[in-house]
Amino acid sequence: MDLAAALRPGPPDPELREIGPDIPGEPYSVSVLQQGYNVPQSDGSTCADCTVSLLRGPSTVLVDTGGPWGSERLLQRLRERGVEPGDVHVVVGTHGHSDHIGNLSLFPGATIIVGCDVSRGDRYLESGLAEGRPFCIDSHVGFILSILHFRHFLLLQTHRMTYFNSKWEATESKCKNVSVVATPGHTGRDVSVLVRGTSMGTVIVAGDLFECCHDEDTWRELSENPAVQETSRKEALRMADVIVPGHGAPFQVHRQLGAGS
Amino acid sequence: MDLAAALRPGPPDPELREIGPDIPGEPYSVSVLQQGYNVPQSDGSTCADCTVSLLRGPSTVLVDTGGPWGSERLLQRLRERGVEPGDVHVVVGTHGHSDHIGNLSLFPGATIIVGCDVSRGDRYLESGLAEGRPFCIDSHVGFILSILHFRHFLLLQTHRMTYFNSKWEATESKCKNVSVVATPGHTGRDVSVLVRGTSMGTVIVAGDLFECCHDEDTWRELSENPAVQETSRKEALRMADVIVPGHGAPFQVHRQLGAGS
Repeated sequence: MDLAAALRPGPPDPELREIGPDIPGEPYSVSVLQQGYNVPQSDGSTCADCTVSLLRGPSTVLVDTGGPWGSERLLQRLRERGVEPGDVHVVVGTHGHSDHIGNLSLFPGATIIVGCDVSRGDRYLESGLAEGRPFCIDSHVGFILSILHFRHFLLLQTHRMTYFNSKWEATESKCKNVSVVATPGHTGRDVSVLVRGTSMGTVIVAGDLFECCHDEDTWRELSENPAVQETSRKEALRMADVIVPGHGAPFQVHRQLGAGS
Repeated sequence: MDLAAALRPGPPDPELREIGPDIPGEPYSVSVLQQGYNVPQSDGSTCADCTVSLLRGPSTVLVDTGGPWGSERLLQRLRERGVEPGDVHVVVGTHGHSDHIGNLSLFPGATIIVGCDVSRGDRYLESGLAEGRPFCIDSHVGFILSILHFRHFLLLQTHRMTYFNSKWEATESKCKNVSVVATPGHTGRDVSVLVRGTSMGTVIVAGDLFECCHDEDTWRELSENPAVQETSRKEALRMADVIVPGHGAPFQVHRQLGAGS
């Protein structure tokens, strides 16, 4: 497969195909709670909201929260799946645009990752994300016990996270489940969430690294740094079997046998 | 005054002096609801939250919201001043870091400005901020009627805003009160809020363009683009009588007569 083909403006790549919102998996499943959209209006404005995804497994991880006008809808979508806000261990905002991080305050007790910043309460950790190292959620390696002082309670949390030395190392070695990786370009500090072991293979929940399945004509104009983003997109296409984009349906990356090198 | 002096690493500049949290003004006052902090910990983490400011006048404007762990405190600080969340017309997140935009969902009916993106509900306007034009709040020039569909109600809002052609034009011509201007560098899309006519002159609520009054030794390491940020800082120091920084007390910029050219 010519991985660069999907990155060039042109007709839709037949090797990228939209799929449904639910991807079972062991130990993690991926569900799209809300499919993002981005619709230009005749007056020059744009109606937009982002894709919101829920990962369920040893930890419960919400990736992007939608815009601040949609908090009731988000709570409803979570409750339809039996998830209360307090059940969410980690919230990832793939980048700091308002349609992605509008509802962080619904999850004050969660570990919050926005771009490359990782925080628990007002304590910001040295994540290594800005330096290109992945941040591993729920690995089989390490346990970090953190004491959070929140709302007059001391909460003892056991979020299992650890760090790795190279950007994609976690995908190949000790972190077998879920990791956060820097995928900059759309902004200077975007991250994506990589989930291994689903029924469809490796899923990358990519924020606005990809706008939608066939975004060849649109993503550059929304990018702070198209050259950097193009590199991030190529890496993601190389790793992923499925990509969940920021403003469209999830899509499958079909590879021909022996291709992709 | 050597404007560049405050930008060089070195001893504190005696011409920058911290002041109190309340700045009366006509038509706008500026109150710091929460003074930001940034305290490195021995384990390599950092405890931080941002400065939260309230502008009161023809419109009520909240500049930065603090981290998502602090929503109850923010609501309390607003209520102490007789402000309910629904009274806030405009919320500005100076940039998309989690300690600045953690509580947007408390204000679902407000116009939301995060970095260079301006939205009302899921409708994103062409603000011109990313192209360097200021966005004027509450000018005497124009009225934009916008119909917001929110929580099953149609709300008719009359937020008085308009656009200007050059970055600082609003400070010198028709927009006499409050304008949002792009001041990039800390991230790619930072904005600051400029308030004219206070009892202390022109106030710039600057987010992390300035960390605190004497940040000469710290701001660069937190910057995505120090060269761009240095330019933004010089422009702000040239315009402001008072600067409200992202992680410290407001400070006054004292100018000697005949200096500053």
